[in-house]
Amino acid sequence: MPQLGLLHGRAWAVLFGQLRRPPGAVCIRAVHSHSQVAEAALATQLKPHQEKSNFIIKTPKGTRDLSPQQVVVREKILDMVVSCFKRHGAKGLDTPAFELKETLTEKYGEDSGLIYDLKDQGGELLSLRYDLTVPFARYLAMNKVKKMKRYHVGKVWRRESPTIAQGRYREFCQCDFDIAGQFDPMIPDAECLKIMCEILSGLQLGDFLIKVNDRRILDGIFAVCGVPESKFHAICSSVDKLDKMSWKDVRHEMVAKKGLAAEIADRIGDYVQCHGGVSLVKQMFQDPRLSQNKQALEGLGDLKLLFEYLTLFGIAEKISFDLSLARGLDYYTGVIYEAVLLQTPAHAEEEPLNVGSVAAGGRYDGLVGMFDPKGHNVPCVGLSIGVERIFSIVEQRMKTFGEKIRTTETQVFVATPQKNFLQERLKLIAELWDAGIKAELMYKNNPKLLTQLHYCENMGIPLVVIIGEQELKEGVIMLRSVASREEVAITRENLVAEIQKRLSES
Amino acid sequence: MPQLGLLHGRAWAVLFGQLRRPPGAVCIRAVHSHSQVAEAALATQLKPHQEKSNFIIKTPKGTRDLSPQQVVVREKILDMVVSCFKRHGAKGLDTPAFELKETLTEKYGEDSGLIYDLKDQGGELLSLRYDLTVPFARYLAMNKVKKMKRYHVGKVWRRESPTIAQGRYREFCQCDFDIAGQFDPMIPDAECLKIMCEILSGLQLGDFLIKVNDRRILDGIFAVCGVPESKFHAICSSVDKLDKMSWKDVRHEMVAKKGLAAEIADRIGDYVQCHGGVSLVKQMFQDPRLSQNKQALEGLGDLKLLFEYLTLFGIAEKISFDLSLARGLDYYTGVIYEAVLLQTPAHAEEEPLNVGSVAAGGRYDGLVGMFDPKGHNVPCVGLSIGVERIFSIVEQRMKTFGEKIRTTETQVFVATPQKNFLQERLKLIAELWDAGIKAELMYKNNPKLLTQLHYCENMGIPLVVIIGEQELKEGVIMLRSVASREEVAITRENLVAEIQKRLSES
Repeated sequence: MPQLGLLHGRAWAVLFGQLRRPPGAVCIRAVHSHSQVAEAALATQLKPHQEKSNFIIKTPKGTRDLSPQQVVVREKILDMVVSCFKRHGAKGLDTPAFELKETLTEKYGEDSGLIYDLKDQGGELLSLRYDLTVPFARYLAMNKVKKMKRYHVGKVWRRESPTIAQGRYREFCQCDFDIAGQFDPMIPDAECLKIMCEILSGLQLGDFLIKVNDRRILDGIFAVCGVPESKFHAICSSVDKLDKMSWKDVRHEMVAKKGLAAEIADRIGDYVQCHGGVSLVKQMFQDPRLSQNKQALEGLGDLKLLFEYLTLFGIAEKISFDLSLARGLDYYTGVIYEAVLLQTPAHAEEEPLNVGSVAAGGRYDGLVGMFDPKGHNVPCVGLSIGVERIFSIVEQRMKTFGEKIRTTETQVFVATPQKNFLQERLKLIAELWDAGIKAELMYKNNPKLLTQLHYCENMGIPLVVIIGEQELKEGVIMLRSVASREEVAITRENLVAEIQKRLSES
Repeated sequence: MPQLGLLHGRAWAVLFGQLRRPPGAVCIRAVHSHSQVAEAALATQLKPHQEKSNFIIKTPKGTRDLSPQQVVVREKILDMVVSCFKRHGAKGLDTPAFELKETLTEKYGEDSGLIYDLKDQGGELLSLRYDLTVPFARYLAMNKVKKMKRYHVGKVWRRESPTIAQGRYREFCQCDFDIAGQFDPMIPDAECLKIMCEILSGLQLGDFLIKVNDRRILDGIFAVCGVPESKFHAICSSVDKLDKMSWKDVRHEMVAKKGLAAEIADRIGDYVQCHGGVSLVKQMFQDPRLSQNKQALEGLGDLKLLFEYLTLFGIAEKISFDLSLARGLDYYTGVIYEAVLLQTPAHAEEEPLNVGSVAAGGRYDGLVGMFDPKGHNVPCVGLSIGVERIFSIVEQRMKTFGEKIRTTETQVFVATPQKNFLQERLKLIAELWDAGIKAELMYKNNPKLLTQLHYCENMGIPLVVIIGEQELKEGVIMLRSVASREEVAITRENLVAEIQKRLSES
């Protein structure tokens, strides 16, 4: 695996450059004196909920708020993912949170029951989007787009039984990259795998592996093993469970629940327990049964080509041809892949966290045609990064180390040691804002200087400008470095330039 | 109005620096040769919609996709808005797209019917969020947060009759900034108005005005004019229509529909037709009737202080004390404000576009208390930027000028004049990606050189690296500037450094 590039390293350094141990027990007293709330008027207008019912204040099941700390971490992760997508020439696209209900039907197989529907309030029947792939296919068909490389970062909704410990939610964010269009084989597919490697390496989540398979190979296996075509989907679902269940249990499900003959299941078992590198592809080409199946041969041919390209990209060692990989979604038609972390981060003292797969995707050459009035297809291949799970890992790591993150970007705090200096502070801070400097002050007529300085230490604000009577008389401002506690007097007209100089140096 | 700072200017320059006239009629032939789509297999698995019903492929009523061009423009606008929020020390927050239905009830007055409910699929009753303010108040109460300055950019949903021409949608993006906490009066309120000014100036949307009023002054007016308290809400709704209807029509509605005595309506009319600067505040202090009302005096006192602070911020001339401003939402309790554009952009040749208000907000001191089990309040003041409307204006302007925007950020294209050079291209592009360089190639085994160069011109890609047999033999790469068409040979090991040098210079 080659070293990752500048953008990755830099972006990550920015994130963790902001991490710091919690500072000493400096604490700001919340100082408030004023209330103009006309309580009587409020009482007639607004009633607290508890007077009306047993209302419990919470977010809906399986959803959560993101605190400012979480927002910062998520933004950094998303920035890295999006910068990788842009490095590969993708355009942005946005689609509505909900689609016509019918747009989503018959796309998700057994999982369709997890779609959130909107209430019929008159008008169209609507559902919240379940992924970003079906809306993309709908967009391509609707606008007759035959070729497009796009990324999309957005929330999707699934009525799953949430297991928060695994980082699974009913509302979660997906980051998708897809290439639509008729191209020479396996070039876009190889780029998708390259992107997954770049993102997972860049995020420094520890070692990972990308399992690769092909739906046509799976179908070929089922065919040559003697599975009746009507049972392909059901048996494929069983195979999909091999990442969570043993072969013994999966075989039992095939035979006892899905009515497959035991000897057919055993034949399948010989195949789906295989995994390896490009040598396994060559071995399967020689397989006496599988080599008789046209579909399987097409899939194997593509995988052989794919491995050639992955070798050129320097990532072949990260890829495992895994015949047990099936992927749940109905719409895949060719190559499929799924990235799994091989271990939780790097440090033994961290608690292990089961996060399952962190990225997945595949080729879906028939989905756009489902939307096109004439059934015209646009071949597509893509990937989805499971940022929520990645987010869980990073959050867990930060908790373990007691790391604290800056939630604001404030560069300068405007303080005064004097009473009745609000007006001067307001004039001064407006100058800073208008110069593009990130600045705050205390919303108080007469704050204590110590309170103001403690706030800066607590919030990690690097500079303080201090104005008092003496400074006002002399036409200067004191500029204080919070870290070194050094103060220098600077003339008012040089203040903005000096601050900008200091900020560009740090 | 002071000149706006560096961040604004720079950000906007980036946006419009990317705008360029459409290039000459260079056109890429879509070159495809390969299809491995197993059409038969697809047909059994996936059925086009038209075979099943009269399905029309579209987005739900009042919603839309954002094309790559639109995504770029929206991102630039949002970046500017968020950078302003961060300049003022705000933290980010994210909340779920839907809330418990009960969280939203009794917050929006007459507009509650516009809330989207989710279907009851078992479990909790849910609604899509209607704004970002109520979820913020719910967050504060739920987490017992007494003080917070946060921004939130996110979609909200309202079942309005969409008038797309006015930039109104059923799904739209809001950018909110709010300050929660008990502080000395009018300091946070003044900062909210300062932020609105910075954003509207920074976006260069033409001249604007911010109307300011206070709910307590309105209530005071109703009281001294003799409106029965039970009719305050209904009469307030009528006043709210003065931006779209004449006083004559509003008066008629008050008298004929809402049963107000004509002489009371006339007294109200004397007040709500007034607008002016701080002198009008002073005049109202002297008003024989209004000066007898405690609530009105509180509101007037706060507005007087507010104007003092706005003068210190250098924005008083942008603010109009407008007694007709009422704002629809139930939850406001004090100062309210609304920014309107005074004219469409700057150029006479553009079609006028009615966009209504582009930003609004106010003080809501009772909302958090509605969620708190003991009814404890956290005073709040905030603002919301109507980015969709701003987006309509910018889009309209771009259409008028036929401006084209780059939708990708690709810096380098990897090309070849030779057949059978895919392998070399793949090795080369992986080097670039791993160095953090944004690079693309054609997904084709044997693309024509002209096709590759045309693609770069069309997409605004500045550099091309060209590799052929000669170059491979000599261990060099040709680096071509698309604009000047100059080519220089560079040794393979210097390529990345040379590209990075060129990109940093441009």
